[in-house]
Amino acid sequence: MQLKTDADPARFLARPGFSFMSLVVISQSMQFAGPLQLSSGASITDYTLAYETYGSLNADRSNAVLVCHALNASHHVAGTYADREGSEGWWDNMVGPGKAVDTDRFFVIGVNNLGSCFGSTGPMHINPATGQIYGADFPVVTVEDWVNAQAALLDALGITTLAAVMGGSLGGMQALSWTLQYPERVRHAVVIASAPSLTAQNIAFNEVARRAIVTDPDFRGGNFYAHGVIPKRGLRIARMIGHITYQSDDVMNEKFGRALRSAVEGSGPSTGFRYSTQEVEFQIESYLRYNGDKFSEYFDANTYLLITRALDYFDPARTHGGDLAAALARAKAKFLIVSFSTDWRFSPSRSREIVKALLDSRRKLSYAEIDAPHGHDAFLLDDARYISLVRSYFERIATETEAA
Amino acid sequence: MQLKTDADPARFLARPGFSFMSLVVISQSMQFAGPLQLSSGASITDYTLAYETYGSLNADRSNAVLVCHALNASHHVAGTYADREGSEGWWDNMVGPGKAVDTDRFFVIGVNNLGSCFGSTGPMHINPATGQIYGADFPVVTVEDWVNAQAALLDALGITTLAAVMGGSLGGMQALSWTLQYPERVRHAVVIASAPSLTAQNIAFNEVARRAIVTDPDFRGGNFYAHGVIPKRGLRIARMIGHITYQSDDVMNEKFGRALRSAVEGSGPSTGFRYSTQEVEFQIESYLRYNGDKFSEYFDANTYLLITRALDYFDPARTHGGDLAAALARAKAKFLIVSFSTDWRFSPSRSREIVKALLDSRRKLSYAEIDAPHGHDAFLLDDARYISLVRSYFERIATETEAA
Repeated sequence: MQLKTDADPARFLARPGFSFMSLVVISQSMQFAGPLQLSSGASITDYTLAYETYGSLNADRSNAVLVCHALNASHHVAGTYADREGSEGWWDNMVGPGKAVDTDRFFVIGVNNLGSCFGSTGPMHINPATGQIYGADFPVVTVEDWVNAQAALLDALGITTLAAVMGGSLGGMQALSWTLQYPERVRHAVVIASAPSLTAQNIAFNEVARRAIVTDPDFRGGNFYAHGVIPKRGLRIARMIGHITYQSDDVMNEKFGRALRSAVEGSGPSTGFRYSTQEVEFQIESYLRYNGDKFSEYFDANTYLLITRALDYFDPARTHGGDLAAALARAKAKFLIVSFSTDWRFSPSRSREIVKALLDSRRKLSYAEIDAPHGHDAFLLDDARYISLVRSYFERIATETEAA
Repeated sequence: MQLKTDADPARFLARPGFSFMSLVVISQSMQFAGPLQLSSGASITDYTLAYETYGSLNADRSNAVLVCHALNASHHVAGTYADREGSEGWWDNMVGPGKAVDTDRFFVIGVNNLGSCFGSTGPMHINPATGQIYGADFPVVTVEDWVNAQAALLDALGITTLAAVMGGSLGGMQALSWTLQYPERVRHAVVIASAPSLTAQNIAFNEVARRAIVTDPDFRGGNFYAHGVIPKRGLRIARMIGHITYQSDDVMNEKFGRALRSAVEGSGPSTGFRYSTQEVEFQIESYLRYNGDKFSEYFDANTYLLITRALDYFDPARTHGGDLAAALARAKAKFLIVSFSTDWRFSPSRSREIVKALLDSRRKLSYAEIDAPHGHDAFLLDDARYISLVRSYFERIATETEAA
């Protein structure tokens, strides 16, 4: 890997006694000449990774924690951008000064994955080989490719070994993959609300979302940028499906139930319905449309295809004849595996598959199944037992790190 | 109701000793002048109902069974059309000579609901008030409206009382509604894989499907007929979502799992992947695309909106302050309620809500929760315990009918 950055690793070194009480952060980026070999056989050159760091790297560079992001998140894990209200990172409740992943003790790194649309090189950027926007030609990337890119970033930051790699959902898959691709570089892996692979149903939901995007006439075969259009219809549908699968049926019933959007006059005698197939009738519809619209304003359609495909492809057991225990036997890390009782996207049974495989290959692990009502979304939310579990685990890592 | 039919009710009278060994059927239709008052306050005039009948009405007209259809089915419940291979009715495994619902003993009626696209008046027909195709102007219809239309058909056929009304899913909602709208006309109601109302998640899935259709540029505000186009993209997405929610996660894993569409050459070293976001990679994708394509060839987009909306609206408890038991207290029928363990669209807990409400209002009922792997689709499939349960129940009805 050839570095093309003016970032000075020294500035990440420990600044003892300095603590962000209110974490104001900046987005950074590092350029790489590559080539980065991809699972598909293709490679990518001249790419950028956007990243953020929180806290300080200690003198022996042993307190680094890499946080991997899920489908629609980014390297902006924690803190806020100066002068931008509401810009809290997506895991700001988990990562920060004095928080469960304590940036007073750990040097935390968030990286935006290749193919994403939040700063790292993606389909909306220029392909140096052609001088044209990548669009649909951006190479398919896998979890393994992302991990390799993250490893290159860590090299550039002078970090050989991670105290921990962690992530939820697709981020958990990356954490798991780290322990297999770079077993010597990971002391702990925290794999939350994740799975060793997608089920047929998971793939099916991804495929519907992708078809909605690809068949939107504004997708233009993935080269919509040049036409000045955005396949918003498809993105809206994709996001709506996402929202349904992130939440439990019970939480949706509690939050929305069958409540109507608002009191409606002049309709049927006592039902309050307006009797329309296209207007919003129920609150849940209004919620879905709002979130679909918002998402279509900022998320890239090609990125959605790439990231859902990375989810589909992840399956470390595949190259071991389906034997997950054999696949995980390579890992040297200790594991914390967490699942949530009402998560039907990545159900506890999928986490238990990882647990069983780790036990079968005699790895060290802790497993917690949190009884939480929120479905898959729970991994992002403030469940006291969940947060304190992660806190305890990281306190153990910190003690271990500081004693070393 | 004013009859505009040349159908002779006498021809439905008993033909003793005559039994269809191989049930060859014809689709019939009856015209009504109306107006049929709808829940919305609108009304519909000059409408047609397509229907089929199997077996013979007995002399005292006491052996009629009405079968109500679900989202994408029709009045073609059983038998085949002459010279049309593969034209078996959607519940041909359940209804026919010697079958669980035995057409040697019962006179079975299937009706296509108003707004559907299989023969009854729907959005693709001419609005007599304007001389134009209804399109998006077809009035919103509810389960209650359908039941009223079905009652008008029974009147025309000279049937006052049903030995049973039965249906699965949305068809079960109609069966339940019959017992509330016409309590004196129903002796038994068989409500299978159904629910007393949709959950927020159910409505959410319907809404995504509707948005996919409505935002397809070929939908043209619902008046696509005049433009010679069909919103196939939207219909495909709608159908894909349907297929996912009709099946259990386990059955999908068993049928498709993570199997690739076919052996693929020249891709990654050992995974067999072709690494593409748009091409079919997994078998489940191929299955969904195939079924989506097929559906988009024959199903009407406006019908899809209307029928999903009828599902959304159904909620007999609503006009009783949410008290389902109070709503069901009107019923005089005896009930058979059936649910399937892996049905996550209309889960057993929803059937148990009906059961509890019926018990609370001291109605007579039998309830069976069938341990079947197939999810919501189970109600259409050949599960031996399920079929024999329905058979026993109908034998009881037949004995009761014949003894009367």
